[in-house]
Amino acid sequence: MFAEDDLTCDHFLNGRLQILQPRQGYRAAMDPVFLAAAVPARPGQTVLELGCGVGVASLCLGARVPDLGLVGLELQPDYASLARRNAEAAGMTLEVVEGDLSSPPPELRARSFDHVMANPPYYPPGGGTPASDRGRERSLREETPLAQWVQTAIRRLRSGGWMTFIQSADRLPDLMAGLDRRMGDIRVLPLAPRIGREARRVIVQARKGGRGPFRLLAPFIVHDGPVHLRDAEDLTDAARAVVRDGAALPLAAQ
Amino acid sequence: MFAEDDLTCDHFLNGRLQILQPRQGYRAAMDPVFLAAAVPARPGQTVLELGCGVGVASLCLGARVPDLGLVGLELQPDYASLARRNAEAAGMTLEVVEGDLSSPPPELRARSFDHVMANPPYYPPGGGTPASDRGRERSLREETPLAQWVQTAIRRLRSGGWMTFIQSADRLPDLMAGLDRRMGDIRVLPLAPRIGREARRVIVQARKGGRGPFRLLAPFIVHDGPVHLRDAEDLTDAARAVVRDGAALPLAAQ
Repeated sequence: MFAEDDLTCDHFLNGRLQILQPRQGYRAAMDPVFLAAAVPARPGQTVLELGCGVGVASLCLGARVPDLGLVGLELQPDYASLARRNAEAAGMTLEVVEGDLSSPPPELRARSFDHVMANPPYYPPGGGTPASDRGRERSLREETPLAQWVQTAIRRLRSGGWMTFIQSADRLPDLMAGLDRRMGDIRVLPLAPRIGREARRVIVQARKGGRGPFRLLAPFIVHDGPVHLRDAEDLTDAARAVVRDGAALPLAAQ
Repeated sequence: MFAEDDLTCDHFLNGRLQILQPRQGYRAAMDPVFLAAAVPARPGQTVLELGCGVGVASLCLGARVPDLGLVGLELQPDYASLARRNAEAAGMTLEVVEGDLSSPPPELRARSFDHVMANPPYYPPGGGTPASDRGRERSLREETPLAQWVQTAIRRLRSGGWMTFIQSADRLPDLMAGLDRRMGDIRVLPLAPRIGREARRVIVQARKGGRGPFRLLAPFIVHDGPVHLRDAEDLTDAARAVVRDGAALPLAAQ
C-alpha cells in the first residue's frame, strides 16, 4: 500500500475530479480523459473498465453521463484502493473488482455490460529498460497480450454493446488482431499531436454484433499550430472541450 | 479479346501516358497513379505488380523512375494484352505474365523482386450487384482473398524489399490480416477526399524483414476545400503534383 507521502492529488476536467495517484508509479495524463470522452454511454447503462488503475477514465465518464453502473477491474490492489478513494472523493459509485483480466473473477464472468473500455499498457513485453517502479512497469508494459484484452472485452459485452480502447498508434495492428467476427462497426480515430503529424494514439471502437464497415476517421488534432512555440497550453478548441470541460468525443460524429 | 471499338484511349500523367482500356470494363482512375507514386523504387530495381490490369500503375512508375525491371501478373488475357500494347505505346518494357496470383506460374515463383505493388479489387466476395461486365467484375470484386494477395506479395519479395498496396479504407483490417511476422516498418497513409473527412483509400506499405514500428501517417488530402463547390478540378497542390506531374509520394517523408 502507498504511504500518503507517496501520493499526489491531481486535477482533471478543470478540477471537477481530484485524483490521488502514486508520485512514482503510473500517472494518468490525457489518454484516459480522451478514452472516457469517446465512450457512447447513455444514462442508466453499465460500463466495465479493464485495468482501471486509479479510476480516471471511469470517473471522467461518470462525470459526463449520469446514472451509470461503473465497474473497474484492476490487478494491483494498491491502485484498486486508490480508485475507490478517488470515486468516494468525487461522490460517485465505482465498483472496483480486483483480479486478472486474463481470468476474471467469477463475479465478473457472470455479468455483461453495455460498454467495455480500456487504456492498456502501450509497450510490448521485453525490450527497453523496465520502469524501476513495479506498479508503473505493470501499467506501462504489457504482461497480458493486447489481443487478450480485446478478447476479454468482447466476452464481457452484451450483444449490441460497444468496446472502446485507447492505445499507442504503433500497436494498432496488435489491437486489430484481437477483434474477431463477433465485432463490427469498427472505427479508428487517430489522435494526432498537431495538424499534418502522424498519429501518436488511436481510439478503436467496435460493436458486438455490428455489421457496418470499418472506418478510418479523420484525425482528431490535439494541439494548435504546426510546432510547439511556447510553454503555455496550446490545445485546440476541440481538445480543450474534452480535457477541460469534459465534453463528449463521439466517434459516430467524426 | 476486345474489339477496337470497345476501347478508349485515356491520358494519364498530363498526357505522358496514353492508356487503352475497355469502355465497359474496369477503368483505371487515380488509384493506380497514387499507388505508383508511393513505391520507393530506385533506378535499376525490379518491380512486380500483382493484377496489373492494363498496366497503368506499372507504366506510371516506369515514367517516374528509369531503368526499372517491370513485371506485371494479370489473370485476364485481354487485359494482359492491353497492358503490353500500352507499354509499347509508351516506349517502355513491361513483361506481362498471365496467371493466377494464388498459384503464380513457375517462371514467377523462381524470381524475387525489390518491390511488389497491387491495387486489388475493393469489394469482398458475395453481396451487392455483380457488374454486368465479367472483366469489370473480376477487377472490382474479390475472388482471391485480400490476405492471399498480401501473402503472394510477401513470397515474391526479396529480403529488405518493399510491398506497397492501395485499397479501399474499409478493407484495411483484411489487408492487415495478411501481413505476418516477416513484415515490419508497416506504414498506413490514409487518402482523404478533403480535409476533415474520413479516408476513402489507404496506401499500406511494409518491408520484408523490417523491424521498425507500425506508423499511422497523417492523411494525404486529395481535394481542396471542405466541400465540392464547382465542376472544375480542385485537386490540392500535392495531389496535382502526383496525378499531373508524376511526382513521388514518399511515405517515409509523410
